[in-house]
Amino acid sequence: MTDQNPLVIFMPAGRRDRVMPGQSLLDAARQVGVEIESICGGRLTCGKCKVVVEDGRFEKHAITSTADHLTPPGDEEVALLARMGVNGDGRLACAACVTGDVLVFVPEESRAHKQVIRKSATERVIEIAPAIRQVYVEVDEAELGEHRGDWGRLQEALAHQWGLTDLAIDLFALRKLQETLRAGKWKVTVILWQEREVIDVLPGYHEGIYGLAVDIGSTTIAGHLCDLRTGAILATESTMNPQVVYGEDLMSRVSYAMTHKDGLEKMHTAVIDTLNKVAARAARGAGLQSRDLHEMVVVGNTTMMHIFLGINPKELGGAPFALANREAMDVKARELGLRLHKATNVHILPAEAGHVGADNVAVLLAEEPYNQDEMMLIVDVGTNAEIVLGNRERLFSASSPTGPAFEGAQISYGMRAAPGAIERVRIDPETKVARFRVIGEERWSDAWAVGETALEAQATHLAAGICGSGIIEAVAELFVVGVLTPDGRFNPDLTDHSRMQWHGRKGAYTLATADQTATGQPILVTQDDVRNIQLAKAALYAGCKLLMARAGVEQVDRILLAGAFGSYIDPQYAMILGLIPDCDLARVTAVGNAAGDGARIALLNRAKRIEAQRVAKWVKYLETAVHPDFQDEFVAALHLPHARDPFPHLQELLPVTAVAGQLERKRRRR
Amino acid sequence: MTDQNPLVIFMPAGRRDRVMPGQSLLDAARQVGVEIESICGGRLTCGKCKVVVEDGRFEKHAITSTADHLTPPGDEEVALLARMGVNGDGRLACAACVTGDVLVFVPEESRAHKQVIRKSATERVIEIAPAIRQVYVEVDEAELGEHRGDWGRLQEALAHQWGLTDLAIDLFALRKLQETLRAGKWKVTVILWQEREVIDVLPGYHEGIYGLAVDIGSTTIAGHLCDLRTGAILATESTMNPQVVYGEDLMSRVSYAMTHKDGLEKMHTAVIDTLNKVAARAARGAGLQSRDLHEMVVVGNTTMMHIFLGINPKELGGAPFALANREAMDVKARELGLRLHKATNVHILPAEAGHVGADNVAVLLAEEPYNQDEMMLIVDVGTNAEIVLGNRERLFSASSPTGPAFEGAQISYGMRAAPGAIERVRIDPETKVARFRVIGEERWSDAWAVGETALEAQATHLAAGICGSGIIEAVAELFVVGVLTPDGRFNPDLTDHSRMQWHGRKGAYTLATADQTATGQPILVTQDDVRNIQLAKAALYAGCKLLMARAGVEQVDRILLAGAFGSYIDPQYAMILGLIPDCDLARVTAVGNAAGDGARIALLNRAKRIEAQRVAKWVKYLETAVHPDFQDEFVAALHLPHARDPFPHLQELLPVTAVAGQLERKRRRR
Repeated sequence: MTDQNPLVIFMPAGRRDRVMPGQSLLDAARQVGVEIESICGGRLTCGKCKVVVEDGRFEKHAITSTADHLTPPGDEEVALLARMGVNGDGRLACAACVTGDVLVFVPEESRAHKQVIRKSATERVIEIAPAIRQVYVEVDEAELGEHRGDWGRLQEALAHQWGLTDLAIDLFALRKLQETLRAGKWKVTVILWQEREVIDVLPGYHEGIYGLAVDIGSTTIAGHLCDLRTGAILATESTMNPQVVYGEDLMSRVSYAMTHKDGLEKMHTAVIDTLNKVAARAARGAGLQSRDLHEMVVVGNTTMMHIFLGINPKELGGAPFALANREAMDVKARELGLRLHKATNVHILPAEAGHVGADNVAVLLAEEPYNQDEMMLIVDVGTNAEIVLGNRERLFSASSPTGPAFEGAQISYGMRAAPGAIERVRIDPETKVARFRVIGEERWSDAWAVGETALEAQATHLAAGICGSGIIEAVAELFVVGVLTPDGRFNPDLTDHSRMQWHGRKGAYTLATADQTATGQPILVTQDDVRNIQLAKAALYAGCKLLMARAGVEQVDRILLAGAFGSYIDPQYAMILGLIPDCDLARVTAVGNAAGDGARIALLNRAKRIEAQRVAKWVKYLETAVHPDFQDEFVAALHLPHARDPFPHLQELLPVTAVAGQLERKRRRR
Repeated sequence: MTDQNPLVIFMPAGRRDRVMPGQSLLDAARQVGVEIESICGGRLTCGKCKVVVEDGRFEKHAITSTADHLTPPGDEEVALLARMGVNGDGRLACAACVTGDVLVFVPEESRAHKQVIRKSATERVIEIAPAIRQVYVEVDEAELGEHRGDWGRLQEALAHQWGLTDLAIDLFALRKLQETLRAGKWKVTVILWQEREVIDVLPGYHEGIYGLAVDIGSTTIAGHLCDLRTGAILATESTMNPQVVYGEDLMSRVSYAMTHKDGLEKMHTAVIDTLNKVAARAARGAGLQSRDLHEMVVVGNTTMMHIFLGINPKELGGAPFALANREAMDVKARELGLRLHKATNVHILPAEAGHVGADNVAVLLAEEPYNQDEMMLIVDVGTNAEIVLGNRERLFSASSPTGPAFEGAQISYGMRAAPGAIERVRIDPETKVARFRVIGEERWSDAWAVGETALEAQATHLAAGICGSGIIEAVAELFVVGVLTPDGRFNPDLTDHSRMQWHGRKGAYTLATADQTATGQPILVTQDDVRNIQLAKAALYAGCKLLMARAGVEQVDRILLAGAFGSYIDPQYAMILGLIPDCDLARVTAVGNAAGDGARIALLNRAKRIEAQRVAKWVKYLETAVHPDFQDEFVAALHLPHARDPFPHLQELLPVTAVAGQLERKRRRR
């Protein structure tokens, strides 16, 4: 290439090189490493490679650019640009060939590997580069005396037009191939998986590929249907995990699989049926059909993943908690009974250890503690809590059997986070009388109009029970105002308080009075409820402490609360309760369903799957339950907030009378 | 390695090298390139690596060998050898370590890659090296605090103990893995496919792998169950192709698939159901179960393979006869509904062209014309005849639509080759009276005892019809004795002959009189029957001639008649009829079901699959039906034996009176 060759500069990347005269802008872009979108491969069909030619003299770049420095557009290009509504400066990079120096602007929508921004604790961008992609090809027609076969002809077209070699074809794609080639008059759009398997062939030019990211939680199954070209979430569906009928918590499901001959089969079928419904509903919501879903990523805890794959989870029911497989897998959806596209592959993220599964790896993908300098603690609160602690230098994980108390189970008046559930609680430090707010109602209970009583059965504000975040706030407030002592007992000085009931030495606190509830019966917080919360929070806190000790960390820099539950919990109350270790409250963040986000990231970017596999092997799992210090840490953590750990960041919030008053004042200011 | 190192010589290969003292004979054998069998990998379990130490001074090899030059056998080895009934000189190569010079004999049964001899036109040996093999491994037990997962542990064991890396595991093998590892106390036998996929894991040490080779013919489905360690055929099952009810010949089945919405589905299900029965029966015959079949090879013509794979064969119904796929494929048996082992792979041999399928490629594998110097013509006679002509330098194939006349269909008294079918015919040149032999009866019809008549309904010798080889002999003999003229008409001079019936100018010959048949009605050869045989043989002969012209060959060196039909046809009559071109009759051989043999070869040796793929692409397919010379060749070939081609090798057999007399005399001498 000499100085005589035309110079091409691509903006905004600013990449430049001299090219052969007559080369297309698309080829020139490839030469300089600018990736421009193209589905049709230069056949003037897709219009994805639209660019804008800048006109003028650009001193900085020492170049004069003008539309004349490109071959003029032909009729086909003009027609396509017109259909696309592109004005005079727009050209198609595949059709415009370089004759002189040009400065070309590649608009965002024409760039390959677009990015989506993930709003997280630490905002970041995810490049859209999924495991599947579409390519348009024109295949040689079958001719008498030429015997390559339709698949052979398609392979050669893919090799010549796209440089794709060593491809396989799924049996179900092959079954449709001949009809499709003829229906599309030998012009077809191929959907390729991992650049190595043809999973679908559609007649003519076709645009649009979609995938489903699913998080199979013990309680909830949630699916995001994503546009794999833009990264957009087109539909979200979530539903109860039908396995709940076989046991609320994981261990009872493992036990069901162990004790019932058809237990695994039943639970496997239940989850597959539900996933089919979730997929169908999500597809409908996006104006698609299940068979339009060409890729799927599934995450979940290890028990859920075993059952999903049809593997008996019984080994997870006891030490040494051996996984059947820790590695990532790709399985044909149809092999599992999933009714998506017939050739769809399901990617399953790897696990870390017997009790830390693909869902936690997905949380890691979503939050990337391994790319941070600060020491990050991630707590994914569910029936089992998974804890991760670390940064770019070291990473540890653990699981803590918190039980379902945080989800409102094992609580006398507990219920799921559904309309009518008490989710927020404040208690007056002087009168010890509670006010609350229920899901589905904006107003606090003390703001209800006079006369709004239980008789108005349809009233949305009446309380039906307490959900997870409600019980946490209730216990924390009861502690802050002195109704509970630091060891978790009801204060025996309050024998005669109107809100207290006593059965011998066991107290119970009336959170909602009979006229505030839908049942007409009061809603109480009992001594057993408090004990269950203490046991759960102590298990979690002890796990955090053991990880911190293992990592040699005194204080964490940041805490992320993941999981649906983490989204509703008030970090301040979590800390007052001693559920999480001391940290600057401003740096405690709820990050929502990070596992679902991680599944979506693995759906949108195939390189992230390799990252997941690497991180899953790198993270060190700590078996906290058998750790010699666990018992000691657990007992100390039963106290509110803790028997010995100071909480400097909570100092003014903790329940000595003055502090309680400050807390109340501070709260009222909000 | 110096002269001080012990010298080890392996007989009968005679390979030798100096080795490190203390090295096992098994390792020493690997070092010098002698492959000794081993399943257990040196764990004193399988006893496969038994060798014999020669005692004495071997001048030729300049070596003194004695059992003392090996470490003495331990208790385990002594016990295993005793169980195996091995005498004093026997040692296990994995346990015996070299301390001094030794000469070791490796008996046939201890050699890896044993061979089986295939009796064919050209006898050859096939190395036993199938696509699957068994390896015994001892896996690390799961331990608390160690998180590789059972599959991870198995992978590491396979890597360390067998050097096997980059393995995948079938989902169904994974589902059983945990239970199997524990049932086998972490000692398991793995069945590996193509050195890359674990398809089964069996508890403890397990010996025995089996596969099924199947030829799906239009009329008959035949399966051979083979021991994949010895190559032995343990069971053979064959049954009628159930698709026959949807059409006798290929084109009517293609048409059924085109005209019936569920036509493909019905025919696909029918063939799969039948294969399941064939597999189950073959397994039972070998004392096994269907799930013991871990590998399968299937061949068949292109229409059968399309239907087998669930691909609509409609494109094969008209020009340009496009195949969906010409290449070899591996498909999971379960994906097709085959009930073998859950993870069994089915290998499908490649095709050559739209009408020359995997069955013909299998014939090539079986007969290897591409490894011969002589110009070989292979004719696979069936509903469609496939023809191959060539040698190591060039290879051509064609298909000729002979129709089902050669199988006894479209013949007035035609029937399948079943008991009661006339299969041999001789006609007295003087009296023009026929004698015949039926399937299931040793004696010729003129040797039946006086009084054996149609009244004896149970008599096995009575004729029920004429099968393919019978009609060929009948027409050829009628021609030889002058009842038929060279143009295929009944000789009008025989108006009054007792065996002739005339309907106007159309004659018919009484082959079997009423008292010779099971029905009590005479069996005739009609003018239409002769015409149908002429049309079929002319199509075949014309195909052969066009291939010979294409290859520039005047005379072929050898003719192989393949297919079940080819086994029954008398080469001499085939040539008298002008079904095949002139050749030394001593070099015309029936090779039986060569397609089935080829399937078996591909089952026993995975390298042959690559050879098949290479040959399938190398062979040049000639579209004979549209060849400009076809019509001319076809018309000339309608004559008996041919309108213009001389048959020098038939000279004394051809029907001038003298020659006919010679033929008769010659025949009587046999």
